[in-house]
Amino acid sequence: MEFLQNNLIYFIPLLGLIGIIVMAVKSAWVNKQDAGDQNMQELAGYIADGAMAFLKAEWRVLSIFVLFAGALLAYSGTIHEINGKPIHSSWIIAISFVIGAVLSATAGYIGMRSATKANVRTTQAARTSLKQALKVSFTGGTVMGLGVAGLAVLGLGGLFIVFLKYFDVIGADGVDTIHMKTAIEVLTGFSLGAESIALFARVGGGIYTKAADVGADLVGKVEAGIPEDDVRNPATIADNVGDNVGDVAGMGADLFGSYVATILATMVLGQEITVVDKFGGMSPILLPMVICGLGILFSIIGTWFVTIKDEHSNVQNALNLGNWSSIIITAVASYFIVMWMLPDTLSLRGYEFSRINVFYAILVGLVVGTIMSIVTEYYTAMGKAPVNSIIQQSSTGHATNIIAGLSVGMKSTVVPILVLAGGIMSSYYFAGLYGVAIAAAGMMATTAMQLAIDAFGPIADNAGGIAEMSQLPPEVRERTDNLDAVGNTTAATGKGFAIASAALTSLALFAAFVGIAGISAIDIYKAPVLAGLFVGGMIPFVFSALCIQAVGKAAMDMVQEVRRQFREIPGIMEYKAKPEYEKCVAISTKASIREMMLPGAIALITPVVVGFIFGPEVLGGLLAGVTVTGVLMGIFQSNAGGAWDNAKKSFEKGVEINGEMHYKKSEPHKASVTGDTVGDPFKDTSGPSMNILIKLMSIVSLVIAPYIAVAGNSPDYPSTEIKKEIKIDKTVDSLGNVKLDTLINRTDTLNIEQ
Amino acid sequence: MEFLQNNLIYFIPLLGLIGIIVMAVKSAWVNKQDAGDQNMQELAGYIADGAMAFLKAEWRVLSIFVLFAGALLAYSGTIHEINGKPIHSSWIIAISFVIGAVLSATAGYIGMRSATKANVRTTQAARTSLKQALKVSFTGGTVMGLGVAGLAVLGLGGLFIVFLKYFDVIGADGVDTIHMKTAIEVLTGFSLGAESIALFARVGGGIYTKAADVGADLVGKVEAGIPEDDVRNPATIADNVGDNVGDVAGMGADLFGSYVATILATMVLGQEITVVDKFGGMSPILLPMVICGLGILFSIIGTWFVTIKDEHSNVQNALNLGNWSSIIITAVASYFIVMWMLPDTLSLRGYEFSRINVFYAILVGLVVGTIMSIVTEYYTAMGKAPVNSIIQQSSTGHATNIIAGLSVGMKSTVVPILVLAGGIMSSYYFAGLYGVAIAAAGMMATTAMQLAIDAFGPIADNAGGIAEMSQLPPEVRERTDNLDAVGNTTAATGKGFAIASAALTSLALFAAFVGIAGISAIDIYKAPVLAGLFVGGMIPFVFSALCIQAVGKAAMDMVQEVRRQFREIPGIMEYKAKPEYEKCVAISTKASIREMMLPGAIALITPVVVGFIFGPEVLGGLLAGVTVTGVLMGIFQSNAGGAWDNAKKSFEKGVEINGEMHYKKSEPHKASVTGDTVGDPFKDTSGPSMNILIKLMSIVSLVIAPYIAVAGNSPDYPSTEIKKEIKIDKTVDSLGNVKLDTLINRTDTLNIEQ
Repeated sequence: MEFLQNNLIYFIPLLGLIGIIVMAVKSAWVNKQDAGDQNMQELAGYIADGAMAFLKAEWRVLSIFVLFAGALLAYSGTIHEINGKPIHSSWIIAISFVIGAVLSATAGYIGMRSATKANVRTTQAARTSLKQALKVSFTGGTVMGLGVAGLAVLGLGGLFIVFLKYFDVIGADGVDTIHMKTAIEVLTGFSLGAESIALFARVGGGIYTKAADVGADLVGKVEAGIPEDDVRNPATIADNVGDNVGDVAGMGADLFGSYVATILATMVLGQEITVVDKFGGMSPILLPMVICGLGILFSIIGTWFVTIKDEHSNVQNALNLGNWSSIIITAVASYFIVMWMLPDTLSLRGYEFSRINVFYAILVGLVVGTIMSIVTEYYTAMGKAPVNSIIQQSSTGHATNIIAGLSVGMKSTVVPILVLAGGIMSSYYFAGLYGVAIAAAGMMATTAMQLAIDAFGPIADNAGGIAEMSQLPPEVRERTDNLDAVGNTTAATGKGFAIASAALTSLALFAAFVGIAGISAIDIYKAPVLAGLFVGGMIPFVFSALCIQAVGKAAMDMVQEVRRQFREIPGIMEYKAKPEYEKCVAISTKASIREMMLPGAIALITPVVVGFIFGPEVLGGLLAGVTVTGVLMGIFQSNAGGAWDNAKKSFEKGVEINGEMHYKKSEPHKASVTGDTVGDPFKDTSGPSMNILIKLMSIVSLVIAPYIAVAGNSPDYPSTEIKKEIKIDKTVDSLGNVKLDTLINRTDTLNIEQ
Repeated sequence: MEFLQNNLIYFIPLLGLIGIIVMAVKSAWVNKQDAGDQNMQELAGYIADGAMAFLKAEWRVLSIFVLFAGALLAYSGTIHEINGKPIHSSWIIAISFVIGAVLSATAGYIGMRSATKANVRTTQAARTSLKQALKVSFTGGTVMGLGVAGLAVLGLGGLFIVFLKYFDVIGADGVDTIHMKTAIEVLTGFSLGAESIALFARVGGGIYTKAADVGADLVGKVEAGIPEDDVRNPATIADNVGDNVGDVAGMGADLFGSYVATILATMVLGQEITVVDKFGGMSPILLPMVICGLGILFSIIGTWFVTIKDEHSNVQNALNLGNWSSIIITAVASYFIVMWMLPDTLSLRGYEFSRINVFYAILVGLVVGTIMSIVTEYYTAMGKAPVNSIIQQSSTGHATNIIAGLSVGMKSTVVPILVLAGGIMSSYYFAGLYGVAIAAAGMMATTAMQLAIDAFGPIADNAGGIAEMSQLPPEVRERTDNLDAVGNTTAATGKGFAIASAALTSLALFAAFVGIAGISAIDIYKAPVLAGLFVGGMIPFVFSALCIQAVGKAAMDMVQEVRRQFREIPGIMEYKAKPEYEKCVAISTKASIREMMLPGAIALITPVVVGFIFGPEVLGGLLAGVTVTGVLMGIFQSNAGGAWDNAKKSFEKGVEINGEMHYKKSEPHKASVTGDTVGDPFKDTSGPSMNILIKLMSIVSLVIAPYIAVAGNSPDYPSTEIKKEIKIDKTVDSLGNVKLDTLINRTDTLNIEQ
């Protein structure tokens, strides 16, 4: 215990390493499974190749972006002062940024590889039993989950040690608060790198998956009249690749970003807390890393419970058991960790709280995440009132179906927002801003488990596709359909969790931003701040519109390519010639990367422009606006899309409208297909993109916060607050008082307008 | 000049009176016009009776509401202290509230009466010439415009004098600042009364008009296959009534509310400015009333320009000329008024500005209003890129039409929000918070003209309907169609103006709220305030959903009634029996009032609950959230709806898609009909309702501000700002210092927790 206490900081990356080792073992196990016959392997090969083709194309653009942005960061010339010595820290931020990007991309690569191996092996396993099919597909998902969490904890924990040592050597005089905070601040680069990858994976991936899906359906199902997942459709491989690109790599990168950002934001705030503890005053900083690191172990324990007895067992229950196990173990363990690590009372920016309240804040995070998932499921699940209302209104046509879906989506914002607001208030009540951040970290602790469940869905979906394309016996498809149906539910709850995590992450980052930017308030009663709030609120609308349009344009490209192949390659329809799958994959890939440029640029550039022209307080208003409408538009679009999807799916089994049964091909069913098509970009592109938008803008703001805290030139209007802040900082510094009340004391080595 | 200077306050209601007199003259002129043959008069009679039936039903509910809310206000026991004497002012607020409600309802009544007289007379005039038809319809609209502006200025100006005198007598010691501010504060009741009527007229009216429209179309056009405005359709009268209810009474009450609220908010802020001038220090208070009062005269001048030469003249140009004339005259006159009335420099809450800057702020308001109208027109006009994009995407089906419309609506938020943000910042830059408020007042100065143009649209629409139902010769319908087409454009620009006015009004009210609530900042960095922002942001989503659903439910009631009549009354189809029009009117009326209860209650009760439980700063956060997403959702929904509507209308003349012409009844046209049906509740119910929502919540907050400034019990979290404010106020008071730096000094006669 003594040893652990003294060396806790070194145990953190070790926890990440354990996650990676278990991942490797599980990955090897999946690879060892039977991949089925020649035909199945060939089809799976197409999907795997397509997925890798997307990743490669994405990486080509990404590497240019990362190098460019990294160079910009390195060139920016940030100077941190440690014990009187100015240190050029900008190149360290740049390195931190590149490492974050590489690790996030690696996690995505591992997940995609694992998923594209597990899919066909799940199909093969489904030939023998449901139990085995679940085992293969869930293990495939677990690889993704552990890869994300393991690499994140290893990277963050490892870099923190390295930076701490580096600044220690440079600055001398032992571990002190100044170089600790410098070490944490350069870590923001890591978070920015991770979230940049998420932009490409989630937004680009979202465009990819829906362009392929819509393109495949429009020509294949509607024009050529062949079923979904038919091997004759040139876009069918792209469609299956899309499931991996969007739902595996996109979701993985999204949660990787949230995971890293919440831990980091908590560290930034924790560093402001001055305590005397057994960890050299570092307990509030180490706590989020310890909880999330241990969360990896608890997630591994949770996976043991995900198993079923026989063909008639309930797969959903097995997943729920695993999920709940890891959440409950995390909750219980958090109590002991908090009691062990933290001193009796802590204080942040004048707000005092006891350690037990930090534990309560963690509980708040776990509860918020859980409720958000449950609510999302309610609004999108078959058989529940919201989806039924859409079904009923499909009977009077396309328009009423759309109206019903839109109003379900809008109404579905109520409970999540109230829960979120309650979560903010209660976690703040318990432990101030540190409470808000640690609540987010608590919620993210079981990320490995959440992601395992999330990634299981597209694997099962793909397995079904392969079964269909290889024309395997019906009982195989039945088993994969069983898994797929559960996967649809987990996809909905996963989206709820992802939005909740993005929201809490943004709030934690927002709290950290204010500290680093050196402002004490974001007063929307000041006209420029209010204007920032309005402009920020507008961005999610234009971002959504651009994403939706992008899907439309990319789908049109796909439609033309599929038509061309049907026209120019004779014998496709008679199974005599093979379609050129890779051409469709290339089109989707190219279009997705082209179309994500503008929205991506908006997310990255707006905070920089606003921050440098109008100063940190206006930027704070902008961030608040983005976060509020971003969360609302995210919930609205995702849930409307999910509800439309399941309303359409309900017709497969038949639905009763005004005492009459309706099935597929009926008029109400056609109306429901319209809703589903509208919902596709909503739920898989623009909706989830909101997560990235709000987090990315917050992280960019956090990274530029030290610059604008100084350079922030406020125009002539009397936003005196900003100027005053800077003055206060200088005063503090001229007294030689290096207390952590303010973070700006290093800035006076730069040119400040006197 | 000397006399005018000393008695300016008495000239203000006089300006309102002039407006009312001119209105009476114009109304008499309309009544004198030929109302056509027996058949036309009968049909017009049905519409007029239907409109009055709606008003009566609305008033029945309204009077209960007004009495109840008035009693609540009277009972609330506010005490204002004037020169040491405590005065029970709550019953004065209640009277003020009732008068506001009655005047708004009266303006609506006058407008509806005038519109339902002008419609058939326009049809008759269209038998002779376009020139005459325009004259009748526009004069009908002018009656509404002058009625609204005249009654508002007369009511506000008159009550201000009365209250000033009353408090003067009670308080003695001549006109001093304390009783002046008391007089202004009790006027908030007037504004609340006006906006409450707007809730019924705009939200209830919006539900009415779309329920009738959708119901009439679904059974008439789709099931029975008879054309629009066919006399055999039992719901056709309700449909025509709806145009009056929604577009005349609804729009009128909406702008009446904005008009009153902006003037009042500017007065509240003006009252905080201490100046030495020729008007006993009252110039900043009187300025908004003077500008808006004179704006009535300038609007009357503008109407002189609205005339055309012959059949080939451009009606739109005539309206534009009239509109621009009044705006330019107002702008020029404002310069002289400001230079005459205001002293060289003024100061509000520490912000100093010169009088010329007040003039610039007024210009900002005029520019913002104009740009918002132009942008709205661009996004919804036929032949422009946004509507064309929807037409193009109608070729691939219902879903792509919907997707295109949604993304047009979302993108259409960008420019208006940037303009609004620029308007906030620049008007604040020029003249602080007073600048923001006076900008809004400047924009609203030409309300009489705006409303005349707005109300002209539905009159022309109705005239066309009557021509169709009376089977008049085609050249009549051609002339009314010409007017109707212009009316569609003015409806779009009018909506842009209404949203802009609601947004600026809410901002002005927001600024006034902070002053009265006695807080100095709304810091969204405090967790509870941020939570308020989130909850506020969510309300427009749920409000929209409820409005959309309400239309669906009410339309279903209508569908069943129309089906019943077709079934139970033999001979309708053969013109042998008359449908029971009044039953359909009654159904729409009942349903609209029933369905507006829940959203109305949310708007009225939320601020009260939040304000009393969490205090004024959290309520400020809530208001900011409501305003930001309310404006966004308003623009998004109104413009998407308008664009869908005109995309559909474009098919009537034929549109080219990929080199092929498409007309009515083509597949793309059917897709465009779906979009139009989705857009109907968007553009006429939920979209415009946002105006009411944001204003009403702001006014309710303003009314309760004095109560919560004292009673505001902040929970245990350290929102110390609130408590501190109250302490500061007491200190100020205990020094006997009755400066206007703070508004709370009267509150200490109540029980304050020590």
